Amino acid sequence: MIISKIYKSPVAVNLLNSNTIANQAFAEVETSIIHNCTNGSDHFIINNSQKNCNGVVPIKEGIYERLEYYYNWYREKPLPYLKEDVKKGGPIDVYKEFESSDSKIKVGLEFETGNISSAHRSINKLCVGLQTGAIDMAILILPIKSLAFYLTDRVSNYEELEPYFLLLTNYPFIVLGFDAEEYNPSVDILPKGKDGMSDRAIHKWKE
Amino acid sequence: MIISKIYKSPVAVNLLNSNTIANQAFAEVETSIIHNCTNGSDHFIINNSQKNCNGVVPIKEGIYERLEYYYNWYREKPLPYLKEDVKKGGPIDVYKEFESSDSKIKVGLEFETGNISSAHRSINKLCVGLQTGAIDMAILILPIKSLAFYLTDRVSNYEELEPYFLLLTNYPFIVLGFDAEEYNPSVDILPKGKDGMSDRAIHKWKE
Repeated sequence: MIISKIYKSPVAVNLLNSNTIANQAFAEVETSIIHNCTNGSDHFIINNSQKNCNGVVPIKEGIYERLEYYYNWYREKPLPYLKEDVKKGGPIDVYKEFESSDSKIKVGLEFETGNISSAHRSINKLCVGLQTGAIDMAILILPIKSLAFYLTDRVSNYEELEPYFLLLTNYPFIVLGFDAEEYNPSVDILPKGKDGMSDRAIHKWKE
Repeated sequence: MIISKIYKSPVAVNLLNSNTIANQAFAEVETSIIHNCTNGSDHFIINNSQKNCNGVVPIKEGIYERLEYYYNWYREKPLPYLKEDVKKGGPIDVYKEFESSDSKIKVGLEFETGNISSAHRSINKLCVGLQTGAIDMAILILPIKSLAFYLTDRVSNYEELEPYFLLLTNYPFIVLGFDAEEYNPSVDILPKGKDGMSDRAIHKWKE
């Protein structure tokens, strides 16, 4: 896939410029998106035969699996502050702690598969994680508008959330908008819901 | 009704302590909630015969109508910053400009009738309004948990949003959690959706 839109808050820019392991974290996420390809191809091809014809979950899983298997990220890291009642937010999708001789950084990532209000909840959850010190850098991944047109109905896209990025200015927050390299009506449609997802064990965070 | 839970950010507390017209704005909202009574009664009685049996919109309308008719608030004030594409947020529910000889203050209010993710969008919209200078003080109204149990399914409540109030610390933001004075299984059920709502003209903001 390609990352065609990026928001890095001023605080995130400073962090990336001054901290090698923050940069490594960002590079791992970037690589996991870019290397998410259609099976048997060297790039990502989306079926564009019809509006909303593809599911978005297989794209998320492709990126998450890469983060787990190649880079040892964990799934479902609870936020201690929100843990008492998981209905109040639930865990962070994907999480990793990076450590060097002189610093340590905890990074939380979410791939938004819900509608626009759900995306607002995701950014707020990540900001709560940042503000309570559970994470030191937050990354949100979502499709850009032209790709979202061919994904699950009402899935939120980068452009519709963009007016709200000004709320992220003072947090170390990065938002990545991804796209397919190729739109082609004759490739396989991505299944919706959990259809076609392998029932494999995910690499869950354990306290 | 009663206001049984209140969050005032430190910035809001300072504003209310130092600014008479901010106080007047808050008093108008407070009074409009407190004076929202069941027809023919001097307090608000909710039917508690069954979980989720009442609609929440009639409660909202009772408060909004009072703000419009007694205090001259306006409905549907667009946020200039978000106006280009209303799908990116829509107008602010209720709005009023207060002016004294030495100061002016613009207040935006939302009554949350949606689910918890929708409540996240509401607080973010109000924060965008504050950050862009479209409003100077924001108020969000929603039921407390015990009352929400008898309102529309999944309507968000004060307690489930409460863990996120720490994101509001640096904004002049107030959240009010209201309750009924009496729970009684034999009073009329509040209709859901638009049923039973009069088709009257609302007092819309005009630029």
